[in-house]
Amino acid sequence: MAEEHVVFVGNKPVMNYVLAALTQLNEGAGEVTIKARGRAISRAVDVAEILRNRFMPNLNIKGIKIDTEELESEGRSVNVSTIEIALAK
Amino acid sequence: MAEEHVVFVGNKPVMNYVLAALTQLNEGAGEVTIKARGRAISRAVDVAEILRNRFMPNLNIKGIKIDTEELESEGRSVNVSTIEIALAK
Repeated sequence: MAEEHVVFVGNKPVMNYVLAALTQLNEGAGEVTIKARGRAISRAVDVAEILRNRFMPNLNIKGIKIDTEELESEGRSVNVSTIEIALAK
Repeated sequence: MAEEHVVFVGNKPVMNYVLAALTQLNEGAGEVTIKARGRAISRAVDVAEILRNRFMPNLNIKGIKIDTEELESEGRSVNVSTIEIALAK
């Protein structure tokens, strides 16, 4: 059964997430998915691009999905965009 | 020859770009591509999601590409991530 290798990108420096993904890939994961919501989406794209251009030129983009999540914030619901970037060796 | 219909997303409010894309689609464009760089990438995903969820449920995501551009800034080169979201009726 395929275990899911996910790096969830938030507000930390971009290299934190690059290293988290590299660790998973170097520990045997054949693929890793970079996920983010809202303003962190730009950083998720940076993570994928830095991984491919600087560390693992053999990494391919398997697929990119965007979607919308409804979050509850202070009693009202807010729509937030999401991204999932699947990368595979 | 297919004319290229592009909306380049920057720092203005998200609805400006949603309306720009809607205008192109209502004036006969069969597809429109939402492009952005750097921090505007998150807003480009918002534009695509708002178009699909609120205005044109029949709009499909034809493809999403991410890439890196090298820009010159104050004499040194800076890498900036880019996104292109192709939407089609």
